Amino acid sequence: MIVCEFSIVPLGKDVSVSSYVAECLKIVRKSGLSHELTAMGTIVEGTWDEVMQVVRDCHMAVRQRSPRVLTTVRVDDREGPQGRLSAKVRSVETKVSDPA
Amino acid sequence: MIVCEFSIVPLGKDVSVSSYVAECLKIVRKSGLSHELTAMGTIVEGTWDEVMQVVRDCHMAVRQRSPRVLTTVRVDDREGPQGRLSAKVRSVETKVSDPA
Amino acid sequence: MIVCEFSIVPLGKDVSVSSYVAECLKIVRKSGLSHELTAMGTIVEGTWDEVMQVVRDCHMAVRQRSPRVLTTVRVDDREGPQGRLSAKVRSVETKVSDPA
Amino acid sequence: MIVCEFSIVPLGKDVSVSSYVAECLKIVRKSGLSHELTAMGTIVEGTWDEVMQVVRDCHMAVRQRSPRVLTTVRVDDREGPQGRLSAKVRSVETKVSDPA
Repeated sequence: MIVCEFSIVPLGKDVSVSSYVAECLKIVRKSGLSHELTAMGTIVEGTWDEVMQVVRDCHMAVRQRSPRVLTTVRVDDREGPQGRLSAKVRSVETKVSDPA
Repeated sequence: MIVCEFSIVPLGKDVSVSSYVAECLKIVRKSGLSHELTAMGTIVEGTWDEVMQVVRDCHMAVRQRSPRVLTTVRVDDREGPQGRLSAKVRSVETKVSDPA
Repeated sequence: MIVCEFSIVPLGKDVSVSSYVAECLKIVRKSGLSHELTAMGTIVEGTWDEVMQVVRDCHMAVRQRSPRVLTTVRVDDREGPQGRLSAKVRSVETKVSDPA
Repeated sequence: MIVCEFSIVPLGKDVSVSSYVAECLKIVRKSGLSHELTAMGTIVEGTWDEVMQVVRDCHMAVRQRSPRVLTTVRVDDREGPQGRLSAKVRSVETKVSDPA
């Protein structure tokens, strides 16, 4: 299971990209994968192939509407159980509140 | 005002990096800047100099404890009012729920 | 055709990662795709599917040797002819030497 | 000493960004720091403060010409001698040609 953040930006278009992000978010939701939208990207959890198919679909959807697209993907792949999308944040917050 | 996501990783250390992230989160909180911890990084909002000082402090704190550190920073700098940390996500969610 | 830079880092291992990068470079070379090794990553040119298959193979090769792997991928997808791996740099250098 | 790759992209502008990259390259050259232009970014070597001043200057130069700018920065900070900009690539190439 990987946790993956991606961000897709069209060049040669408007300053606002929220309509593109919205289109991608619909694709992510349709996939059924755990996900979270942040101010800097979309985070998805799943197998490499599940996640990369979603990233590909989102990238191609934006690419169809613009002649140049920049996509950034960061993957954190660690052995262990699913549910790291929320567990990672909890693990840090526990350490901050109880440093002993 | 910029919105900035950063992620700091020590090499040559344990597989778990949450104690390093926790240390960074304390530095971020002390700065007083708006911020959010996600599964893939920490997002901060402020001026370039405010934010980069925090990133530098976090990087150096991790670097003191490890011989090699990889830091990734993504900046979104757009003219306009503060509060984009939450406004960016709201803008997308509005478009998804009301596509017309 | 996309130009793609990727960087793969194992956690919980040695400070030096050059043996992992070397293993990935062999995989890239076997693919036959245009590529370039830089101080911060490997740049590959090809179709999305060609390139992402190589990134996947490299990621999995490193993952087999370490319990946690962080992979960063940046894609520049632009309509037009192949050969952007070198053309992009030339385009900038021409502008710098001849600003008129 | 850090090795740092950065990439600066204006939104709401033309599809081609090479004139912005050229402007940044001039700023990098003026700094006197070791650097290399690749198809996906500019790599610079120096102290954190030296490098981040250059990244800031480049970011601000692009920001002056466009209402929204996305900047990506990746830092590799490792104890040891200067000259890693070329030494990192050599280290991998040696391992690939002589795997024994």
